[in-house]
Amino acid sequence: MEQHSVAIKIIATGIALPETRVTSDQLDIQLGKPKGYVEKRSGITWRYHATPQASQAELAASALHNALTAADLSPYSIDLVICACAVAIQALPCSAVHILRAAAMPPGVAGFDINSSCVSFISAMEVAAGLLNSRAYRRIAIVSADLASRGIDWNHEESSLIFGDGAACAIVERGDGQSRILASLIETWPEGSELCEIRAGGTRCNPRSGMCDSDFLFHMQAKPLFRYASSLIEDYFARLLYKSGVTLADIGTVIPHQASHLSLKHMRKRLQVPESVLIDIYRYYGNQVAASIPTALHEAITGNRLTPGKPAMLIGTAAGLTLAGMVLIP
Amino acid sequence: MEQHSVAIKIIATGIALPETRVTSDQLDIQLGKPKGYVEKRSGITWRYHATPQASQAELAASALHNALTAADLSPYSIDLVICACAVAIQALPCSAVHILRAAAMPPGVAGFDINSSCVSFISAMEVAAGLLNSRAYRRIAIVSADLASRGIDWNHEESSLIFGDGAACAIVERGDGQSRILASLIETWPEGSELCEIRAGGTRCNPRSGMCDSDFLFHMQAKPLFRYASSLIEDYFARLLYKSGVTLADIGTVIPHQASHLSLKHMRKRLQVPESVLIDIYRYYGNQVAASIPTALHEAITGNRLTPGKPAMLIGTAAGLTLAGMVLIP
Repeated sequence: MEQHSVAIKIIATGIALPETRVTSDQLDIQLGKPKGYVEKRSGITWRYHATPQASQAELAASALHNALTAADLSPYSIDLVICACAVAIQALPCSAVHILRAAAMPPGVAGFDINSSCVSFISAMEVAAGLLNSRAYRRIAIVSADLASRGIDWNHEESSLIFGDGAACAIVERGDGQSRILASLIETWPEGSELCEIRAGGTRCNPRSGMCDSDFLFHMQAKPLFRYASSLIEDYFARLLYKSGVTLADIGTVIPHQASHLSLKHMRKRLQVPESVLIDIYRYYGNQVAASIPTALHEAITGNRLTPGKPAMLIGTAAGLTLAGMVLIP
Repeated sequence: MEQHSVAIKIIATGIALPETRVTSDQLDIQLGKPKGYVEKRSGITWRYHATPQASQAELAASALHNALTAADLSPYSIDLVICACAVAIQALPCSAVHILRAAAMPPGVAGFDINSSCVSFISAMEVAAGLLNSRAYRRIAIVSADLASRGIDWNHEESSLIFGDGAACAIVERGDGQSRILASLIETWPEGSELCEIRAGGTRCNPRSGMCDSDFLFHMQAKPLFRYASSLIEDYFARLLYKSGVTLADIGTVIPHQASHLSLKHMRKRLQVPESVLIDIYRYYGNQVAASIPTALHEAITGNRLTPGKPAMLIGTAAGLTLAGMVLIP
């Protein structure tokens, strides 16, 4: 297999959370369940939910400033902001514009959105590496923010318990080539496009074409989704590792999308990696949609769970169905 | 100025239009105006509007197949489809998934969305060049499709007359370096974020945060938008040309976003280029949002308006406000 590693260095990360922490105990009461039910069913102790009027752009801006501050970087040193959210702020213009505005970034800074639903951060990292190496930009901030709470269907138990809101940012440069992507692999399996979706929001369901309130909610067919993803993931892993030129045993840290309790358990089993290798932040964040992977990355970095020189893997299955993974030397 | 030209070659283009051609004469009758009013006011003879149930994904798929067929390329030779629309198909998953499905592309092909509103195609070309040169992909299809008709506010005369629906595709490879981007420049001026927008569609206006039907329509403050863009464009041109290392006189073809009659007139005046250099397809398409630039590119290529070896410029001002331009050797 021909390999082309691509230089990219993560120089800062940051996260942001809404103020309100929603415990599973609170949800037991709210949903009329016996004490302990929601935590047992969801595997979550608490998640964060924004108020109905809170701004996705402001949450994103806060994660961006958190990353800038952490590494003492000037906003003027950023020449591109990539918004890598799953759900947009509004239909037009793109979310990057709103984030740049909320963050009071210097006028003129480039910005656009990249979207591959829950794995948008992986696509954005792949894109950023290409842009840094073609010298289009020198320092790129990738920001993922999602307010899943705005689309929770409280009548659908399974999906209503797992989502949390949040934002995360990673700032990247080309670096000297020591830090690099060994391989990335994005695969789209659109046969599964209806297994996890929010139907409204674009041209499909709108006042002119016809829509109803439930079109604005997450619709998730958890079992068929899990079955479809499971049928693909084993071969997908093999392809990703082959492309990377490493074996599973070489991977020092696995940073997965925090899709659900079950998906993380399944991932651990499939990969046969010890708990210390797998970053699992699900219990205290829930599934933060596109913000999950960069939040887990931030936790991995700040918790010293990445080993310099040792391959780390970002990995996730997302609405689409999209499988995305990346093996990088941090 | 340090220059880094980036190899990229457009190997095929294609377009697609909805069946219904809406003439300005028809709109005169529909809107109760004297004959000739709409054409005079808008500068458009006809534009195409999809039916309220027509699918944005199918229109995009049709442009993709048109490009594949034009150059006799196999769908199996495409390893990434970038959706570069301004308005999404639905909130989740991303539009690329729906286009891959509608186009019956081979399962597993990578896909994601890039969005910088009306200039999404320029961002997508910049991203594609980076990805081709980092060897992440070998052949990329960029597809832009927008159904502006789904958001036309018929009570707002100015914006209601100018929009048309459509889709366009360009298929690109790395090539041998003869065809290349000399420079691209994306600038975001988010102070203008409310001058052209559709407020619904994401987390900002939804049933939980509050919304009304008019949030789903284009809101355009044409005069302030034009004034703001005009105040920026002269210096922007200078920066783009400086970065490209060419003068305006070197540019063989200018392919602008077809924003409006006025914007094209203004562009011609500012650039002082002869009519033969500026691709103006506005009269028979209208403003096709993100599909305008690649449709104009397709018309330029099929009409032999590009000169091999001579720089061409893609350029547009978009909702955001985003200014984007690219000078390339085709």
